[in-house]
Amino acid sequence: MRLLAVVEYDGTDFAGFQLQARGRTVQLELESALATCTGEAVRVIGSGRTDAGVHARGQAAHFDTAATIAAHPDQLLRALNAHLPTDVKVRALRRVPETLHARHSALSRRYCYRVLSGRIPSPLHRRYAHHVRAALSCQAMSDAAQLLEGTHDFIAFASEEGPGSTVRRIDRARVWPVGAAAGVGRSDRPVSPGEPIWHTYGDSAQLIEIEVEASGFLRHMMRRIAGTLLRVGDGRLRPEDVATILASRDKSLAGPTAPARGLCLESIAYPDQEMQQPE
Amino acid sequence: MRLLAVVEYDGTDFAGFQLQARGRTVQLELESALATCTGEAVRVIGSGRTDAGVHARGQAAHFDTAATIAAHPDQLLRALNAHLPTDVKVRALRRVPETLHARHSALSRRYCYRVLSGRIPSPLHRRYAHHVRAALSCQAMSDAAQLLEGTHDFIAFASEEGPGSTVRRIDRARVWPVGAAAGVGRSDRPVSPGEPIWHTYGDSAQLIEIEVEASGFLRHMMRRIAGTLLRVGDGRLRPEDVATILASRDKSLAGPTAPARGLCLESIAYPDQEMQQPE
Repeated sequence: MRLLAVVEYDGTDFAGFQLQARGRTVQLELESALATCTGEAVRVIGSGRTDAGVHARGQAAHFDTAATIAAHPDQLLRALNAHLPTDVKVRALRRVPETLHARHSALSRRYCYRVLSGRIPSPLHRRYAHHVRAALSCQAMSDAAQLLEGTHDFIAFASEEGPGSTVRRIDRARVWPVGAAAGVGRSDRPVSPGEPIWHTYGDSAQLIEIEVEASGFLRHMMRRIAGTLLRVGDGRLRPEDVATILASRDKSLAGPTAPARGLCLESIAYPDQEMQQPE
Repeated sequence: MRLLAVVEYDGTDFAGFQLQARGRTVQLELESALATCTGEAVRVIGSGRTDAGVHARGQAAHFDTAATIAAHPDQLLRALNAHLPTDVKVRALRRVPETLHARHSALSRRYCYRVLSGRIPSPLHRRYAHHVRAALSCQAMSDAAQLLEGTHDFIAFASEEGPGSTVRRIDRARVWPVGAAAGVGRSDRPVSPGEPIWHTYGDSAQLIEIEVEASGFLRHMMRRIAGTLLRVGDGRLRPEDVATILASRDKSLAGPTAPARGLCLESIAYPDQEMQQPE
C-alpha cells in the first residue's frame, strides 16, 4: 500500500533532501527509520529536492510498503518518529491511492524565504533567516514580487539549463514584515503611569518573509528570486526591473542565489480526488 | 566611563550567562571580546544570571572602561560583534551614568517561556520551545497566570531558600497562542475557485507563549511558574490552585522546573533618569 508522509526538518545539518553518494540526507534518515519499522527496504520519493541547508515545515514524500504496521498509519507514525533524529520528524502519515505520486501529482509548492534586515546579525534568528545589513523597503519588494505572478519562462532565475521546459506558473508571490527584533529604546509601556522607562529592546531590526507558491520551481529559482527581491529592497534595482529581467530570459541579470538557511519549504498542494483514501 | 550593553544569545551551547570555573559562558565571551577591543581586563556585570540553555533577546550588562574606543560606542559595538561568536551579539551599546548598575538599577525583567503543544515534536522549534504532547487550554493557563500578578512571597515557586527576601512583584503574567505549526489538512485556499485541494500543513500543533514581567525572579521561579501553568493547561491543576500554591509557601506543591530551552530573557527595564547619558 502507498502512504504519504508530511515531513518537517531543520536543514542545517543535512546535505539536502535527496539521497547522495555521500553525506547525511533527509531521505537517508527516512529510509533508515522505515527499514527498522517495516523490516523492508523502502524507497522514499519526495515532492522534490531541497538543497543542503534548506528547511521544510511541510515537505511531502510517498512510499510503498507491504508491512502490516502500515495498515495502521498512526502506529507507523509513532514508530518512525521514535527512530528519527530530533532534526527530522514525520508530522502526518496517511494512506493514499497508488495513483498519488509525491512529485508528479503535486499541484503547487509553497516556499518561504526569511530575511533579517538590520545592522547586527541575530543569534536567535541565525539558523532560519538570512541576515542583511541594508534597510529594506518591503513595499518595493512586494511590488516587484507581484510582477512574477502568472505563467512565465523563469529561465532568468534558474541556475542551470535543466532538461525540459523552464515555464512555470506562480500563483502567489508576497512580501511582508513579520515583526521587529531586539534593540534598545524608550518604552511606551511605563511601569507606573507617567514614569518614563527604558526597555532593552526596540525596533532596530526587521524580519521579512517572501512567500512564493508555484506549480514548480527550477533549480535555485526561489533563492534567486529572493536574491533579486533583496536588490529591489535595498534600492539597487527598481521593482519594474524584475519584469525586465523575467522577459530577458538572461540568467546574468537576476540577483545572486540567496543563502540556503533563509529558505523553508512550507507546503505541497495535491488535488482532492488523488488524496481520497482507498477502502 | 560606564557602558550598558543589550545582549542577545542562543543559550543552547552556553553553560549560562555568568562566569564559572569551567564551561563556556556568555560573560566569558563578552569579557574576551572586550579584552581584545579595549586592551583592558574588563569585568562585565549582567542584570542577572540565566541558567545553562536559557536564551536572551534583551539581556543587559554594564562595564567600565577607560579605552578611547569607548568614547565612540558605535565603533566599540562593531568591533565587539566582529570578535563575538555567532551565538552571542551585542545589539546596542550606550554610555550611561556611573550610577547605573545593570542589576541594582533594573526596575523589572521580562521573560517569555515558549511551549509547543502537539503529538509530534518539531525539528524547527526544538531549540527554542519546550514540547509537550498534551493539548493545553490557553484560557485556563491565562486565568491561572493572572492570579500571580501583584506583590507576593514567591517562595513556593523557588528552587532553593536564597539569602534575603523571597517577596517579588509580578507586573504582568500573560499566556497566549502564537500560531499553529505544521500538519496536514484540507485547504481553504483552492488553486482554482471551487477546486478542493489538500495542503501538507494544518493545525495539529500549537505554540503558546507565557510572558511574565516582574521586579525580579527567584532561582528557577520563571521555569517553575511555567511548569505549574502547564499542569493547569493539561487539566492536572485548576487555575485557582495556583493561588493556593502561592499562599501555601510550600515548594513541594508547585509544578516541576520546565526545561531551559523554552525560556528567553526578553528585556530589562531601567528608569529614565538613570539612563540619561553624561555630557
